[in-house]
Amino acid sequence: MISVENTHPINGHIAIIGCGLIGQSWTALFLFHGHDVTAWDPDPAIRAGLTKAVKRPMEQLAELGQGAARPGRLTVSDTVEEAVANAMLVQENAPEHLPLKQALYAQVEGAIGPEVIIASSTSSLTWSALSEGMKRPSRLITAHPFNPPHLMPLVELFGSESTILDRATEIYTGLDRHCVRLRKDATGHIANRLASALWREAVNIVAEGIADVADVDAALVHGPGLRWSVVGAHMAYHLGGGEGGMAHYLSHLGPSQERRWATLGNPRLTPDVCAELIAGIQAEAAGRGIPELEADRDARLIAALKAREALNADA
Amino acid sequence: MISVENTHPINGHIAIIGCGLIGQSWTALFLFHGHDVTAWDPDPAIRAGLTKAVKRPMEQLAELGQGAARPGRLTVSDTVEEAVANAMLVQENAPEHLPLKQALYAQVEGAIGPEVIIASSTSSLTWSALSEGMKRPSRLITAHPFNPPHLMPLVELFGSESTILDRATEIYTGLDRHCVRLRKDATGHIANRLASALWREAVNIVAEGIADVADVDAALVHGPGLRWSVVGAHMAYHLGGGEGGMAHYLSHLGPSQERRWATLGNPRLTPDVCAELIAGIQAEAAGRGIPELEADRDARLIAALKAREALNADA
Repeated sequence: MISVENTHPINGHIAIIGCGLIGQSWTALFLFHGHDVTAWDPDPAIRAGLTKAVKRPMEQLAELGQGAARPGRLTVSDTVEEAVANAMLVQENAPEHLPLKQALYAQVEGAIGPEVIIASSTSSLTWSALSEGMKRPSRLITAHPFNPPHLMPLVELFGSESTILDRATEIYTGLDRHCVRLRKDATGHIANRLASALWREAVNIVAEGIADVADVDAALVHGPGLRWSVVGAHMAYHLGGGEGGMAHYLSHLGPSQERRWATLGNPRLTPDVCAELIAGIQAEAAGRGIPELEADRDARLIAALKAREALNADA
Repeated sequence: MISVENTHPINGHIAIIGCGLIGQSWTALFLFHGHDVTAWDPDPAIRAGLTKAVKRPMEQLAELGQGAARPGRLTVSDTVEEAVANAMLVQENAPEHLPLKQALYAQVEGAIGPEVIIASSTSSLTWSALSEGMKRPSRLITAHPFNPPHLMPLVELFGSESTILDRATEIYTGLDRHCVRLRKDATGHIANRLASALWREAVNIVAEGIADVADVDAALVHGPGLRWSVVGAHMAYHLGGGEGGMAHYLSHLGPSQERRWATLGNPRLTPDVCAELIAGIQAEAAGRGIPELEADRDARLIAALKAREALNADA
């Protein structure tokens, strides 16, 4: 492995541990913004294919037109120890299996200096569980991206030490990410809790026969989804309250919201419901396979991000 | 009142009953797309101010660059009967009070021909309740727009007769709206059920001290909200399942979703929680008043809609 000494800490060396879809996406994002990356995955086939796998996300990032004057250099390592040796931050994207991640951290901790941050992309495990048994738990943070990570701006952070979170924020902000910070460890962070709550009702609407899968998705994309891409849910109700804002909304419509909450469903993913969801999504996909649907999603995301950026540049 | 005979049914005469924010927005949208509109509101001050009130939404629509060669003509009537006399469709936007709406329908039914559609913008009442006691219940449909209606494409339809729903769909599609149809009458239609389900968890996250109001909103806008502006919730999980799609997602991650659903909150809007939401939104607003926040929302919506339109034009 050839490593490069970095003097500017924000363009410092990054280690990517686990190179599935999330790891590939992080790799592309760090390289694009000028970081040298050393990556490791236990699967030799994934290691061998990584350079090719990051090409498409790198192209998409170039289409968005951000990025460093010179992209970083990608090195693929055969061992964890070698991959993390020169890193200032280790981004871990291993499967969501607690003992496996804990074993990895032990291995990583043995090979890095005390100031190096370990950031877990975990979507469903908590910092408290992951940090158990570490020599230096404060160096671990959860840094949850949203799929696809090279396009979605969100990174959700939690950890025990604010100076470490500040350093991580600086690094991710340098990748044009938008960081939010949890005040308390929580399964599913913020975004997946919200997504899960919404999907529960989306499943319920199908299970109750209120509407088809495709119509539920269309209602979201042309209604609340579009609005939530520009204002959050709390802000939407603040604006829904007219001149009196949130206070007026809560005093006038709070009770009716509570009544509506009571009418929302609590579906189970029974075989019948699953069959209906699968048939419904096939109708919505209308013969388009996953790669085509993904390409369409990405093109629409890139267009939305460009529009957002143009507006921010004007402001 | 001066009325104009329309020969093209899709550019036919529209009556707007109730001219608050929703009614004003519908008025602008119909006018912009070439429909003549006759509007009525019980409040003389609102009637007097309507021509001025539709200017801003008309300008925003012009910014979006859609619209008819010649906008329709706006007439303000002093009585319901006069307003509906020549309409092919009556869009009702009265307050969400069942007896009030039912009394209005009786009045409207006495003044219109048998083929005229009455469309209610109701967000929280059901078709079954609203149509009770009507002479011809099948002429009533619910046609729920999403705020702000002149910018948001969604219209959610329900009614008892598919030919009437087909005609309404043709009219709204002519306004560049995206119609979805409910298979069953349901409080909150689709979009507000989804919005309500998401907001319940957004409130819970604040109530539990997991994150601040502003961070919850930012997570949504930079994460799931952005993604739901391009793919629906069901489609997002279909894509989250990799090559196996929804079927693979459900078999591998269905059980973990059910476990997550069980951990979502069921908050109450207690005085403490309300105080926290109000303080949180004030922090997020950072001194910006409602008009400024609304203008910002609208500018972002217009940019997102333009990006979407450009992409559809390319496809």
